[in-house]
Amino acid sequence: MTMSDNLHLFNQLGVVKRNIVRADKAAVEKLSRFGVSTLHEAMGRVGLMKPYMRPIYPSARICGTAVTILLQPGDNWMMHVAAEQLQPGDVAVAACTTDNDDGFFGDLLATSFRSRGAIGLIIDGGVRDVTDLTEMNFPVFSRAIHSKGTIKATLGSVNVPVVCAGAFVNPGDVIVADIDGVVVIPAARAMEVANAAEKREALEADKRAQFASGALGLDMYKMREPLEKAGMRYID
Amino acid sequence: MTMSDNLHLFNQLGVVKRNIVRADKAAVEKLSRFGVSTLHEAMGRVGLMKPYMRPIYPSARICGTAVTILLQPGDNWMMHVAAEQLQPGDVAVAACTTDNDDGFFGDLLATSFRSRGAIGLIIDGGVRDVTDLTEMNFPVFSRAIHSKGTIKATLGSVNVPVVCAGAFVNPGDVIVADIDGVVVIPAARAMEVANAAEKREALEADKRAQFASGALGLDMYKMREPLEKAGMRYID
Amino acid sequence: MTMSDNLHLFNQLGVVKRNIVRADKAAVEKLSRFGVSTLHEAMGRVGLMKPYMRPIYPSARICGTAVTILLQPGDNWMMHVAAEQLQPGDVAVAACTTDNDDGFFGDLLATSFRSRGAIGLIIDGGVRDVTDLTEMNFPVFSRAIHSKGTIKATLGSVNVPVVCAGAFVNPGDVIVADIDGVVVIPAARAMEVANAAEKREALEADKRAQFASGALGLDMYKMREPLEKAGMRYID
Amino acid sequence: MTMSDNLHLFNQLGVVKRNIVRADKAAVEKLSRFGVSTLHEAMGRVGLMKPYMRPIYPSARICGTAVTILLQPGDNWMMHVAAEQLQPGDVAVAACTTDNDDGFFGDLLATSFRSRGAIGLIIDGGVRDVTDLTEMNFPVFSRAIHSKGTIKATLGSVNVPVVCAGAFVNPGDVIVADIDGVVVIPAARAMEVANAAEKREALEADKRAQFASGALGLDMYKMREPLEKAGMRYID
Amino acid sequence: MTMSDNLHLFNQLGVVKRNIVRADKAAVEKLSRFGVSTLHEAMGRVGLMKPYMRPIYPSARICGTAVTILLQPGDNWMMHVAAEQLQPGDVAVAACTTDNDDGFFGDLLATSFRSRGAIGLIIDGGVRDVTDLTEMNFPVFSRAIHSKGTIKATLGSVNVPVVCAGAFVNPGDVIVADIDGVVVIPAARAMEVANAAEKREALEADKRAQFASGALGLDMYKMREPLEKAGMRYID
Amino acid sequence: MTMSDNLHLFNQLGVVKRNIVRADKAAVEKLSRFGVSTLHEAMGRVGLMKPYMRPIYPSARICGTAVTILLQPGDNWMMHVAAEQLQPGDVAVAACTTDNDDGFFGDLLATSFRSRGAIGLIIDGGVRDVTDLTEMNFPVFSRAIHSKGTIKATLGSVNVPVVCAGAFVNPGDVIVADIDGVVVIPAARAMEVANAAEKREALEADKRAQFASGALGLDMYKMREPLEKAGMRYID
Repeated sequence: MTMSDNLHLFNQLGVVKRNIVRADKAAVEKLSRFGVSTLHEAMGRVGLMKPYMRPIYPSARICGTAVTILLQPGDNWMMHVAAEQLQPGDVAVAACTTDNDDGFFGDLLATSFRSRGAIGLIIDGGVRDVTDLTEMNFPVFSRAIHSKGTIKATLGSVNVPVVCAGAFVNPGDVIVADIDGVVVIPAARAMEVANAAEKREALEADKRAQFASGALGLDMYKMREPLEKAGMRYID
Repeated sequence: MTMSDNLHLFNQLGVVKRNIVRADKAAVEKLSRFGVSTLHEAMGRVGLMKPYMRPIYPSARICGTAVTILLQPGDNWMMHVAAEQLQPGDVAVAACTTDNDDGFFGDLLATSFRSRGAIGLIIDGGVRDVTDLTEMNFPVFSRAIHSKGTIKATLGSVNVPVVCAGAFVNPGDVIVADIDGVVVIPAARAMEVANAAEKREALEADKRAQFASGALGLDMYKMREPLEKAGMRYID
Repeated sequence: MTMSDNLHLFNQLGVVKRNIVRADKAAVEKLSRFGVSTLHEAMGRVGLMKPYMRPIYPSARICGTAVTILLQPGDNWMMHVAAEQLQPGDVAVAACTTDNDDGFFGDLLATSFRSRGAIGLIIDGGVRDVTDLTEMNFPVFSRAIHSKGTIKATLGSVNVPVVCAGAFVNPGDVIVADIDGVVVIPAARAMEVANAAEKREALEADKRAQFASGALGLDMYKMREPLEKAGMRYID
Repeated sequence: MTMSDNLHLFNQLGVVKRNIVRADKAAVEKLSRFGVSTLHEAMGRVGLMKPYMRPIYPSARICGTAVTILLQPGDNWMMHVAAEQLQPGDVAVAACTTDNDDGFFGDLLATSFRSRGAIGLIIDGGVRDVTDLTEMNFPVFSRAIHSKGTIKATLGSVNVPVVCAGAFVNPGDVIVADIDGVVVIPAARAMEVANAAEKREALEADKRAQFASGALGLDMYKMREPLEKAGMRYID
Repeated sequence: MTMSDNLHLFNQLGVVKRNIVRADKAAVEKLSRFGVSTLHEAMGRVGLMKPYMRPIYPSARICGTAVTILLQPGDNWMMHVAAEQLQPGDVAVAACTTDNDDGFFGDLLATSFRSRGAIGLIIDGGVRDVTDLTEMNFPVFSRAIHSKGTIKATLGSVNVPVVCAGAFVNPGDVIVADIDGVVVIPAARAMEVANAAEKREALEADKRAQFASGALGLDMYKMREPLEKAGMRYID
Repeated sequence: MTMSDNLHLFNQLGVVKRNIVRADKAAVEKLSRFGVSTLHEAMGRVGLMKPYMRPIYPSARICGTAVTILLQPGDNWMMHVAAEQLQPGDVAVAACTTDNDDGFFGDLLATSFRSRGAIGLIIDGGVRDVTDLTEMNFPVFSRAIHSKGTIKATLGSVNVPVVCAGAFVNPGDVIVADIDGVVVIPAARAMEVANAAEKREALEADKRAQFASGALGLDMYKMREPLEKAGMRYID
């Protein structure tokens, strides 16, 4: 089975896919060493969710494989359906069929998700019980914090491809989230991106040292000539 | 005097009502034991302010009786008028006749409010001196943080019913606020809601234990049959 | 050279001005003793940036002289050009020719800026590497946190007058930023504003004491008569 | 029965009130002669919904008595329940328990509402079939235009008091809407406000003539003295 | 070649795919008879772009096959690259790697696109020359109208799968847009959706007649029993 | 007197400047022949107000010299002060000391402004009486349409430099507004910009003809080589 086999399931309602291809564990582990900004660069500057997705506490950090959830507005039924599909190391990634800030998730579901091995939640919707979630150290990145309760009445889906906060997510993709944002790394590219991130960080350490010693990017990156060519004028 | 006697005063300008019926102290004390999300559920999923209302520091928490303030844009005159009406255990709840982020409130007014016994402020507007307010541990929930100064020129009102951040507030209602948001509990329903919250929390403790031990909501809430009836398909 | 000499350079692209007139050091030092809200009042209630400008960590605080940067969307080339113009005590103030939340600035540039003596950044755009910046204790006030990478392809300018987050900033102006917001104090008015702030704070200390002892603003500011004149009605 | 008798029903879910006290027909007729801005002034500058409420076509105009609807997000079941309660001259006023832009209403419901005598819709939510609604000349003021379909699963209410787009609405209140916005006039004040509007418009005709002939507000309203007193400086 | 073969190209930069599989012409023709709201329902209530996408003039309408464009912020280079790939009946669908309101498109590009046979543009960005575009009757749906000019410096892509205004779009998919919004119909489902829309419209004609004659949805849809079961209370 | 002489008046409150240097009449006349997008390009891609500024009717168009107004929130006193300073061909440009959507301006003030010779209004605030203004054909570009009434209590200024909707405006500058937005052209550059616009339009006519005949921008602008150099890959 390949990633693209899932595309016919994109946004389809009323479906739970049980067997998904999770990204390679070693790659996930390696990706976990890097920050979101580094990984986004290593991927070629794509894959980010919108910046309105914020952590519920500043130190929240996630790196794991996506179990996707497609919610209906004001309805968190699929959260319970998803719980059964979660495995150790998974991250629940919840999209909604429309923009909705209701509180789809709180400390009870977090307890359930954690008992299944899940390590966090990314939700293009609202979340509540933030004090409890913070005490549990259960990381959530959401578009809103909102007490508004939800019902359990309408089918969405679990483990179909979704668009979450502007990013396309396939079940099994690697999700990395920290205070800089949320990045989605396709399962098939996980190790390649981890390796690229490693190289990038090695280079950055060197650059940081140069900058710290007073070197200018103008010289390090040989920008003076292209600036002049572009017509930059220095005046006094 | 009953709550509804005030309705003819709704949004009326140029009025200060001195005698208001505050919610029962025992009910307020009992409500203070519960979080906003629990209370919102206990009320039947109504009574919340909009989620743009955020605490100025994460641990801010309020539970008290509302003294309402109707502000004019860019004008905080009514804050001083309200100070005189505040009693121990009160929460100032400030609405505005239009959307306005100006800094209507700072550390001087907080000092004044506190010396009257007030325990916090809910404001559908801006607030400033946040460092001082945080050091004072004076909780404020607001739509903005903004230094913009205000004048004292136009009449608003104190202790008339208002709409604040989408919620209808009668003077004397109970206001509970924490990191999940702000909920308004009508004075007449205070003890009923506190009791309902107590029951809900007892039930939640049991559910939390079940979830922690690995039980699924699908089984606990007997969702498998309704899901099947609704047409949910499990695929591999 | 006077401040107004620069106006013909407003928003001009492709220019780096090397010699700017920085506000008097003694005035900057004196301004650093006051908060943004006090300084905004001392200036006559003008000079604030929009309240969407927020610190990346709550204790972030800046007081220094502006080196202005005019960015193009998705392009941080001018950050490197600006680095060379930074002097000890400077604050980089970055505007953009259009609204853009990309991550123009991260820990490498912060290292470079700091090595030049800069003490912080104000940016009407996005910033990243927030964990590193927080650990470095390098204060940034921005419109967004966003990992999105930028290119180095198009000319903007350095040290031309700009509009940043709704405020007009001349290079050399004093920028003060804290959790209440960001205020721009024209270089020519720096000492005058510092002195006015000093007077204001002295007055506030006295008022604070009166408020703390239970005095009402209604009496302290003699508001009862003007309220009555304006038609305020007290009812029971 | 008085208006305030309904307050205990505010935001209550699962209730349909059949008998409501509609504003006096003659007052409604008289109110229909005035624009929203005039009526808002005649009421004392209160009663407006938020300015995000926009007509689906520029000439849309409504003046009638409110039948209120409390919707749940993504659910338009109550629209059908409300249809039965609509009488000739009524305006449906739909609030929602949370912010939601889904398309709760289209041409079929408009046909149903019109056949009951309803003359328009105010909805703090989304609407669709705008081409058909425009051809039908069925005026709608909404927070969004959105095709997103809704379900019929959860109880809201009909003819309970609601907060709609920031305004408190009692069933039976007069709703006037035009391109300037939406104003809510309490049933009990309908004739008083109509009379005040009439006076205001008479005065405005005279002022308009004076302005047209070149008179200045400075002189007409005798502002020169108060301006001078306030410290206005004229410079050359 | 199937649709899913393209998924590895999702968001990839620096690629132009020349041969894409466009939806069947007969299906596109049939889809053109229906409105966006009908098609969205016929698809199972998915496939919509966000409601911030608005037509530049009210009568704008589009139905055609997507040629996708991935833009960089402030850069419209790929518009010219895309022009070469446009065929009669195509709709240009432009996404951007970040939120950006710049004016990527105006009357010159519209002239070019039209000369290639393109029938409109969907852009998650800004557009300008709206007077000319309206006179040309060239329909555009955009997130903003903005004069801001763009450069031609950085590679994006043409005919890779993209996320545009929250919707996933594969090159060749059918795009239908009208005043209700924008819907994306996967090429493989085009005829199925057209047929479903046809059935839905037939049903709606009948329902419209019933509603027009005064029938209630409560009776037509047999809602009275489920309402009662759900606990609805009718009071007087 | 030069433009920069005014800078010390920037944002100063309580000042009316009577003698301002208006842009050359011939230059204004020439600028009136061009659209906002053309002029913005001719200026070097600067000078635009934010795109939230929208015309109250689609055909609204303005080209004239700025009389600036600095408003206080909820207060339109300065509108009357400004009326006296308006001369034939002037455009009132109103900024506010904070974001505020109140209805500062309606048909009475429009009648007054027109009787003084003013040809339109640009306001970073709200406007009302839109039906009347449209019938009068009095063009207004605003951030909101809102009935909310204002008071006359606090000093702002007239003819001081202001920041309006993100653009710096000096009294006397040329303001051009159409459906694409609002551009500010410094008085000193008026003729230069008009000439540049003229050249640009001549070039565009030729390009339009080429595009209409099927030529590609790729060839007209010789983009194929730089695209290849940048690494663009064409695939099938």
